[in-house]
Amino acid sequence: MKSANGINLTMLCDYYELTMGNGYYVGGLKDRITYFDVFYRSVPDNGGFAIAAGLEQIIDYVQKLHFNEEDIEYLRSRDMFDDGFLDYLKNFHFSGDIWAVPEGTPIFPGEPILTVRAPAIQAQLVETYILLELNHQSLIATKANRICRAAEGRAVMEFGSRRAQGIAGAVTGARAAYIGGCAGTACTVSDEIYGVKALGTMAHSWVQMFDTEYDAFVEYCKTYPTNACLLVDTYNVIKSGIPNAIRAFNTVLKPMGITNCGIRIDSGDIAYLTRQARKMLDEAGWTGCKITVSNSLDERLITELLHQGAKIDSYGVGERLITSKSSPVFGGVYKLSAIEDKDGNIIPKIKVSENVDKITNPGFKKVYRFFSRQTGMAEADYICMHDEVVDDTKPLEICDPDARWKSKIMEDFKAVELQVPIFKNGELVYDMPSLEHIKRNCAYQVSTLWPEVKRFDYPHQYYVDLSPKLMELKDEMLHNFGKKSGNNG
Amino acid sequence: MKSANGINLTMLCDYYELTMGNGYYVGGLKDRITYFDVFYRSVPDNGGFAIAAGLEQIIDYVQKLHFNEEDIEYLRSRDMFDDGFLDYLKNFHFSGDIWAVPEGTPIFPGEPILTVRAPAIQAQLVETYILLELNHQSLIATKANRICRAAEGRAVMEFGSRRAQGIAGAVTGARAAYIGGCAGTACTVSDEIYGVKALGTMAHSWVQMFDTEYDAFVEYCKTYPTNACLLVDTYNVIKSGIPNAIRAFNTVLKPMGITNCGIRIDSGDIAYLTRQARKMLDEAGWTGCKITVSNSLDERLITELLHQGAKIDSYGVGERLITSKSSPVFGGVYKLSAIEDKDGNIIPKIKVSENVDKITNPGFKKVYRFFSRQTGMAEADYICMHDEVVDDTKPLEICDPDARWKSKIMEDFKAVELQVPIFKNGELVYDMPSLEHIKRNCAYQVSTLWPEVKRFDYPHQYYVDLSPKLMELKDEMLHNFGKKSGNNG
Repeated sequence: MKSANGINLTMLCDYYELTMGNGYYVGGLKDRITYFDVFYRSVPDNGGFAIAAGLEQIIDYVQKLHFNEEDIEYLRSRDMFDDGFLDYLKNFHFSGDIWAVPEGTPIFPGEPILTVRAPAIQAQLVETYILLELNHQSLIATKANRICRAAEGRAVMEFGSRRAQGIAGAVTGARAAYIGGCAGTACTVSDEIYGVKALGTMAHSWVQMFDTEYDAFVEYCKTYPTNACLLVDTYNVIKSGIPNAIRAFNTVLKPMGITNCGIRIDSGDIAYLTRQARKMLDEAGWTGCKITVSNSLDERLITELLHQGAKIDSYGVGERLITSKSSPVFGGVYKLSAIEDKDGNIIPKIKVSENVDKITNPGFKKVYRFFSRQTGMAEADYICMHDEVVDDTKPLEICDPDARWKSKIMEDFKAVELQVPIFKNGELVYDMPSLEHIKRNCAYQVSTLWPEVKRFDYPHQYYVDLSPKLMELKDEMLHNFGKKSGNNG
Repeated sequence: MKSANGINLTMLCDYYELTMGNGYYVGGLKDRITYFDVFYRSVPDNGGFAIAAGLEQIIDYVQKLHFNEEDIEYLRSRDMFDDGFLDYLKNFHFSGDIWAVPEGTPIFPGEPILTVRAPAIQAQLVETYILLELNHQSLIATKANRICRAAEGRAVMEFGSRRAQGIAGAVTGARAAYIGGCAGTACTVSDEIYGVKALGTMAHSWVQMFDTEYDAFVEYCKTYPTNACLLVDTYNVIKSGIPNAIRAFNTVLKPMGITNCGIRIDSGDIAYLTRQARKMLDEAGWTGCKITVSNSLDERLITELLHQGAKIDSYGVGERLITSKSSPVFGGVYKLSAIEDKDGNIIPKIKVSENVDKITNPGFKKVYRFFSRQTGMAEADYICMHDEVVDDTKPLEICDPDARWKSKIMEDFKAVELQVPIFKNGELVYDMPSLEHIKRNCAYQVSTLWPEVKRFDYPHQYYVDLSPKLMELKDEMLHNFGKKSGNNG
C-alpha cells in the first residue's frame, strides 16, 4: 500500500489513543462511560462565526469502525499492547451515542459542536478522525462562505484541487466549499461522488496546442458551442485574446444563433482588464458573454475588485480557498467533560489551565440558539446542562460568562436546540440530509445572523452564554480545584 | 460513496482536463505527443530551497490509471462528451514517459522537477493529481526540514493529524514530514503503511479519568514502564504535574531499575517551565528523564526557545507543521513546453506573460546540479536542452538568465543530472527507494547546500542558470512573439 487512498480509517488515529486504550483495558476502565465535547476556540480569519461541516464523513467513519487482521498484527509488532486488548480490538465497534450540530450551521467559539458518550476506549479512539474531519471541512466551509459573501451573489467556483493538501483536501474540500456557498468545483470526482457540480473549459495548454490562438478558440467553440468559455490571457488579453475570442464567437456561434458564451482571465490587472473586456465584448454585440476571473482571489481581493468597478460575472477561486490560505487551521478540540460512575451517575470533569480561556465547561451539556420571534434573527446561544429545558414562553435572563454584570432579558424568543442525536447505542438515528439541503440550510442559517456578526473585520461578538446551573457547577469545580491545588484535580 | 477514501484517483482531475481531452479526441489531436514540465516559482516561507516529495504516490497513481464503468456513465450523464471519446477512456492507460527529481532532493524555483512526454489526452489528464501530490508533500517536507533544522539535532515528532486538511493531509503529510527530517509521527496508519514510526503516550483525558493526577501517572508507569512519558500540565506543571511525576517514577520505575522516562509539557511558558522541570527532575535524581514540549511550535518558536535556554530534549509539532501554517501553499505548476510534429520533430512552446517571471522556459529540457569537487558542496543548477551534455572535465561559463552580465566560470566540478527516468513508454523503469533511503538522501543533499542558502530569513539565492542554447531559443521565441504580437503566439 503506497497511497493514502483506501486505507482503514480506524487506524487514522493518534498513537496515544491506542496506548491509552490499552491502558484503560489493562486498568479495568474499558467500560467506563465517558463524555467528550468537540468545540473550537477562535474563528478563522478573526471572523464572527464558522460553518460546521464534515458530519457525513464522520458518520460513515463511525459506521465502518473495525480493526482488520493486518492492523492487529501491526499493533502486535509494536510489542506494547496486551494480548487481551488486541483480542478486544477484533470485535471493536462503536456502541455509544453521538449528538452533533447539523452541517451548514453557523457555530461559535466554546459551544459543543459534537458530543460523544461512549465507553472510554471507543470515545478515545474516535478523537483524531472526528477532529480531523470537522476541522478540515468546517475550515473550508467557513472560508468559502466568506468568499461567497464577498462576491455578493455572483457565482464562485472552487478551482483549487492542484494546490490542495492531499486527496481529501481536494475532494471533501470541494464538498465543504459547496456547503459554504460555492456554485461548483473543478474537481470531477467531487461531482461524481457528492454531486458538487464540476465545471471547467480549457487551460493555457489548449491554446498553445494550436498554431494560433484563433484556431484554438474556433476549435473549442465548434466542440462546445453551448459551453464556450475561452481563456483569453495566454498571450495578451486586450491585443490578442479578446479580439480572437470575438472573431471565434462571430465565426462559430453567431451563425448558430448562440448568444451565451464566456471568457476567462487568469492574470494581469483584473479591474482594468475586465472593464476593457466588457466594453469590447459589448461593442461587438456579445453582451451575453460572461466574464470569469481566476487569479489568486479571496474575499479581500473580490471586495476590492468590486469597489474598483471590475466587470465580473463569476469567480474561480483556487489555492486561497482550498487551503484557507490566510488562516489554514481550524482549532477544534476534543475534551473530556464527564464520566459515569458504576451507578450511572454523571461526574463532571474540568480541564484547568493558566490561560483562563482554555478552561473547559464541565458536564453533559446541550446548546440552544435563541431566535427573535419578531425578526427571525439569531440573538444568542445558550449552553446548559443536558437535563435543563428552556421554556421559551417566558422571559429568560442570560449573562455573559466572562463579564457577568452584562445581562440581558430574552423575551418573545424561540429556543432551538443546536445538537441533534446522530448515534444512539451505536445505531445511526439521524436521517442524513442531502448535500443540496445542507447548502440551502447553510445559506438560510447565515441569513439569520445580523450583519455586524458577518463583518469581515472586527465583527460583533455573538453572545454565547452559560445557564446559571452550568455556571455554578463550573465555579464550584474551579473553587474546589483552587483549594486542593498543589496536588491534583 | 460518502468518504474521499477509496475513490478512483483517475477521476481526481480538473474537469477541464476532460473537456480538453474530448476536444483533442474530436479534433484529431489525441496522439499528438506533448511535453509538460512541473516547476514552482517561489519557496514557501521565503526560504532558500524546497524539498521534493510525493513521487512514490504519483507512480502508484500513474500505474493504476483507469476509468471504470461508473466513471464513464457519470461522464456520459454530463452530456458533453463524444461517444468515441468515452469508448477511448474504457481502455485508457498511461503510455508515455516521465522523468523526475528523486524525493528528498532540494529543488529551486524555475527548474523542471518532473517532466511528462505523452499523447496529449494522457499528459493533460494527469496534471491535477501530479500537481496535488507534489505540491502537498513538497510543502510539508520543506516545512518539516525548516523545523528540524531549527531543532539542531533534537528529535521532532509530527503530531498534527487532527488539524490536517483531510485524510491524506495527515497520512501522506506524516510521510513527507519524515522525509524532511521528523523522527516520527502520531499518525498510526502512517506507521502501518509507510513505516513512519508512530509515537505517543497520553492525552489530558487520561489524567482526568483518574481520581488524582498521581494515580493516573502510577497507572501509566505500571502499564508502560519502559515508555513512560507523562503529560504534566493538566492541572499545574510546577505545583502538581512534576512533583506527581517524580513520585510516580520513584514508586514504580525506581524499584525496577528503570532510569529512562519522560515528561511532556503542552501549555504555558515553555522556556521557564522546562528550565524549572529540568532542575526539579535532576534534583530528584531523574537526570535520564527527557523533556518533550508540544505547544504551537514551529521553526521560529523553537529557535527562540533555544536562545532562551529552554531545556528541551524533543519537540512535538502539530498544526503549524501539518498545514505549513505560515505558508500553506506550494505553487507548483504544469506547463506545456513542447509538442512533436508528425515526423517526431520537437517544436518548443512558450507561455508569455506580462509578468516577466511567469514566462516559461521552452523545449524539452533537463537539469544538472554542479557540485564542487573540492568541497562537495552544491554550487549551481543548470537547465539545458535535453540533448545537451555537460562535460565536467572542462571549465564551463554559466550566467544568470535575469542578469546576464553576472557570469561565473565553473571549474573542478561534478555535474549530476537531477531528473531520472521514471516511466518509459508507460513502463515503470525506476527502482523506488525505501522511505529510509529517501530520508537519508534528503539529509545528505541538504548538507551539500551552503549555510547561506539555508538561512530562514533573506537566504542567498542559489544559482539556477540556463544553457546558452536554451537562452537563445527563449530569446528567439520571445522576439518572434513580440513581432507578431497583437495576434497570437
